[in-house]
Amino acid sequence: MGLVMADDVLGLGLQKIQREIDDAFDAILPVPDDARAPLVEAMRYATIGGGKRVRPMLLVTVAEMYGASRQAAVRAGAAIESIHVYSLIHDDLPCMDDDDMRHGKPTLHKVHDEAIAVLAGDCLHALAFDILTGTEVSSDPFIRAELVHALASASGHNGMAGGQVMDMVAEKEQFDLRGVTRLQQLKTGALLGAAVEMGAILAKVPEDGRTHLRNYARDIGLAFQIADDLLDEEGDEEKAGKALRKDAQAGKATFVSLMGAEGARAQAHALSQQAIGHLSGHGEEADLLRALARFVVERDR
Amino acid sequence: MGLVMADDVLGLGLQKIQREIDDAFDAILPVPDDARAPLVEAMRYATIGGGKRVRPMLLVTVAEMYGASRQAAVRAGAAIESIHVYSLIHDDLPCMDDDDMRHGKPTLHKVHDEAIAVLAGDCLHALAFDILTGTEVSSDPFIRAELVHALASASGHNGMAGGQVMDMVAEKEQFDLRGVTRLQQLKTGALLGAAVEMGAILAKVPEDGRTHLRNYARDIGLAFQIADDLLDEEGDEEKAGKALRKDAQAGKATFVSLMGAEGARAQAHALSQQAIGHLSGHGEEADLLRALARFVVERDR
Repeated sequence: MGLVMADDVLGLGLQKIQREIDDAFDAILPVPDDARAPLVEAMRYATIGGGKRVRPMLLVTVAEMYGASRQAAVRAGAAIESIHVYSLIHDDLPCMDDDDMRHGKPTLHKVHDEAIAVLAGDCLHALAFDILTGTEVSSDPFIRAELVHALASASGHNGMAGGQVMDMVAEKEQFDLRGVTRLQQLKTGALLGAAVEMGAILAKVPEDGRTHLRNYARDIGLAFQIADDLLDEEGDEEKAGKALRKDAQAGKATFVSLMGAEGARAQAHALSQQAIGHLSGHGEEADLLRALARFVVERDR
Repeated sequence: MGLVMADDVLGLGLQKIQREIDDAFDAILPVPDDARAPLVEAMRYATIGGGKRVRPMLLVTVAEMYGASRQAAVRAGAAIESIHVYSLIHDDLPCMDDDDMRHGKPTLHKVHDEAIAVLAGDCLHALAFDILTGTEVSSDPFIRAELVHALASASGHNGMAGGQVMDMVAEKEQFDLRGVTRLQQLKTGALLGAAVEMGAILAKVPEDGRTHLRNYARDIGLAFQIADDLLDEEGDEEKAGKALRKDAQAGKATFVSLMGAEGARAQAHALSQQAIGHLSGHGEEADLLRALARFVVERDR
């Protein structure tokens, strides 16, 4: 019963943040009455509607747990989602993963052209930092600068994009479990970690009070990616809204190829439990984070 | 004689900043001992050696004019150059301008593959904001946040990248002089304006003391682009280090096609003089900016 209630709370929480993030992008991206209209239309297509919004959910939940304003946190959530979406747009390009479907609709370069997809990704990248330096996020410049720092360092060559390059290399060289873990810590983990970190920054949680949050983020990041590998192997393309079975086709080492499906599933659940364990110092204000830790391994998309 | 001396001063100034920016990227981008090595090699290839470094030069000159530390300004200069270089890498991609040469050497996607070029551009984009939020740039978080804001808003859909989309549209629709001016104010002018603005932010020049600097930046930005159109029409490909005559081939409206070569040349010089006029309140501490205003219209590359 507790589990079911927690999942209801999570479901409602996700619905709420999805609506808020959609609204934020709608407000931030009015279509200009000039030749840039197709660019901004493309940015809106990619950002509004679709996506689980896990990163904003993490950011907003941590921020609220420690008493920060939800409105400011949603704004910062739109910034991290803007980075996530730009990375998906570029990842889907013909010269990268060459994907046709994303979130159940055609990828951006399929509806607009490739050049617009490159530029719309670039603009969403810049938009993230533009949002974070607005006073709507915080009246405290120290907080704004810290948010930018957390997001920029997690998304560049020492974070997400660095992990993507490792992922490309993994198609040629066989990585072992340590290599795949390191790759995923950068590719997915860094940005999930930044989401939690940014929530803590917004709520002015002191550095030495963030260790358990970072451990939580690290564990759900890894659990998230193992679940992704399982979905890629066993999932339903329609529910996932994108092409699956691509890693196996590319002969790429994944958690599933290295640990077997059952081993990977057990590991994902262990990590999810371990993540929940890091929250033992919190009461029910952390229930959403606990539910999220379960969700990342139980989701079907 | 005065002119020659000013040009010598400028020549030495440009050489100095070119060396400093090369050194900054060399220090900021050590090659990691893992699968990200080809990515960071690509980032180094694109950022070290080559490029006039006009944006860092503007930033550093304004910052020093008002007493800011050169070391901090060079660091911020590397950030704006990082944005400029990422935009060139993406601009040169096959799905964009499809260029083979840049700064006299093969474009990044020609020496590495396209995927690495997309990701190296993305990483340089993130790197810019990572640099700006480092304490090496400023110990004052307000300044760091303001620098990020100036750069992010000048490079996104309301700035440089928005101008690039207009430029793509300009290949299909014939823009008039007003349209081309607006396009170039975004595509080139916004980032040159940000360079001057960032110098003023670093040196804590109050808002109401920046008007003449902004006017200067607006005028040299336009002069710079008119000179670029003239170079595209009349320049030497070897000196330019890139393919020329592309606009005429694409049948695109430019300052030269709309005003004629002589009209464009006269306009560029008039703007350069007008830019110098905005500096009348300054003494010889602004000589480098005056020399830069002449350089942007007299350069042969």
